[in-house]
Amino acid sequence: MYIGIDVGGTNLKAGLVDESGRILTSARKPLEFQGAEIFAETLAELARNVMDQAGVTEKDIEYVGIGIPGAVQGGDILYTANIPMRDVPLEKLFRQHLDLPVLLGNDADCAAAGEFLCGAGCGSRDFIILTLGTGVGGGIILGGKLQSGMGCGGEVGHMVIEKDGLPCNCGRRGCWETYASATGLIHMTQEAMAAHPESALHAIAAENGAVEGRTPFQGAEQGDETALAVCHKYVEYLAAGVINLVNILHPEIVAIGGGVAAAPEHLLLKPLQEIVERECYCRHVGRFTKVVRATMGNDAGIIGAALLKRIL
Amino acid sequence: MYIGIDVGGTNLKAGLVDESGRILTSARKPLEFQGAEIFAETLAELARNVMDQAGVTEKDIEYVGIGIPGAVQGGDILYTANIPMRDVPLEKLFRQHLDLPVLLGNDADCAAAGEFLCGAGCGSRDFIILTLGTGVGGGIILGGKLQSGMGCGGEVGHMVIEKDGLPCNCGRRGCWETYASATGLIHMTQEAMAAHPESALHAIAAENGAVEGRTPFQGAEQGDETALAVCHKYVEYLAAGVINLVNILHPEIVAIGGGVAAAPEHLLLKPLQEIVERECYCRHVGRFTKVVRATMGNDAGIIGAALLKRIL
Repeated sequence: MYIGIDVGGTNLKAGLVDESGRILTSARKPLEFQGAEIFAETLAELARNVMDQAGVTEKDIEYVGIGIPGAVQGGDILYTANIPMRDVPLEKLFRQHLDLPVLLGNDADCAAAGEFLCGAGCGSRDFIILTLGTGVGGGIILGGKLQSGMGCGGEVGHMVIEKDGLPCNCGRRGCWETYASATGLIHMTQEAMAAHPESALHAIAAENGAVEGRTPFQGAEQGDETALAVCHKYVEYLAAGVINLVNILHPEIVAIGGGVAAAPEHLLLKPLQEIVERECYCRHVGRFTKVVRATMGNDAGIIGAALLKRIL
Repeated sequence: MYIGIDVGGTNLKAGLVDESGRILTSARKPLEFQGAEIFAETLAELARNVMDQAGVTEKDIEYVGIGIPGAVQGGDILYTANIPMRDVPLEKLFRQHLDLPVLLGNDADCAAAGEFLCGAGCGSRDFIILTLGTGVGGGIILGGKLQSGMGCGGEVGHMVIEKDGLPCNCGRRGCWETYASATGLIHMTQEAMAAHPESALHAIAAENGAVEGRTPFQGAEQGDETALAVCHKYVEYLAAGVINLVNILHPEIVAIGGGVAAAPEHLLLKPLQEIVERECYCRHVGRFTKVVRATMGNDAGIIGAALLKRIL
């Protein structure tokens, strides 16, 4: 058995996971960051908790896999994106409380592992998972192994698809994630609303309390033309990056996850698949990458952290 | 020992290659395509020729590696780009004349293998080679193995970097190769010349008989401002795609080959390196991909075809 821990921006979630990728017991705690030492102690408590629930002990556990929102190396955190940690020897700190081997991974990589081993990528060898949320996250698995090069690979959201386009947090302009993330979609929707005061989007946003990633899809479902145009434009931008990845790596499967992926199939996945089939370079040999929805939801991070070793 | 054959658009080049990647003997023939049967026979004659020159026989040769400008599968050519072949059982046809195992590879993949094993990539595990010629070719090697996914990966030139930009032969708009290839550079130069009749580029082009990939670099060397601006713009576009690849795959080395790569270092490689270092995502962890010039020139294709098995 394994323990997987998913370190999110607001929550820590742990699970006891068996060989087949099933979560046997789970526990969660809000993340209240008070320094690396207490952070490590909290992780150890969560791990202890899921073991206790199942009545198992250290000797039943092969390792604890931990998905970190940032960069890791061996048992150390190099830095984290939204938690103030830099050069933290996490495995060492963790083992002061619970003496089990620790395997650290980037959180997106863990989610990729989960989806690859137990979800949309199951049975494939070359697989890419995209997470459409605040940004666009990516995990690349080729030949069954995670590919992150010297450690920072998989930053597919920071692929420029519109030179000199919208400014991105990374310092470049026109990065894919400024268009294809939920944030980008909300931005597109707001622009369209400003240009179209007659659009039903205004009423929908007012009802929901804000413009959200689902707003344009709700509008399109109601037949609002402005909303429909936003959905079309968004899918075009999404497709641009997906096709780039297909042309560069030609994987068997690209899976789309994250909040936006929940949009109605006929407005997101189906038109996306059509554009990819029509424009990808591999159409010349008739071997098409499948574009599908991710299937595992939030559990992918826990399960992937637990099974991380299989894709390293 | 191995035999490597590089099938170019105009020439067939063969070499007898030893374990260390040295070419012992070589032979070449112009390509005059008269059908697949004669094509296979010519390849076998070239292979025989390099064996005879060295006084070796079939039993000394492990296999014949052949780099094909197109898509291959096993011993078959699926299609070729500039030679009219489709679904040709090349290994079978070849062995009617010379009974040696045949290993087919895409020509860009073979050049990548050569450069990875014996050139700019020597000693690395994660390596990308870019060939700046008529188009932008790419070879991706991760964990020491060639990555082409379901067979068509590595088409890095067909990564859109300017959505709705210049039309590309592949059917998309704004593909990297429409800007970063020698063709793209010539196009940029011609545009700048039309806008700047005072530029020294006109005299340089007239002297060379045409606008070529080296024309703007020659102009820049003479201090011509228009030429210098073209070089700057070209390097920016080149950098956009290189940084995308670095962000997606974070390899140890990106090597630049092809005609354009011969440009003066201070006008091409140095500013390219500066932009990549400044903008790549991995600057946050201080682990930089090296951007270097390819070192093997035209021999990479022969040597890579001969040693192809090592990276498969």
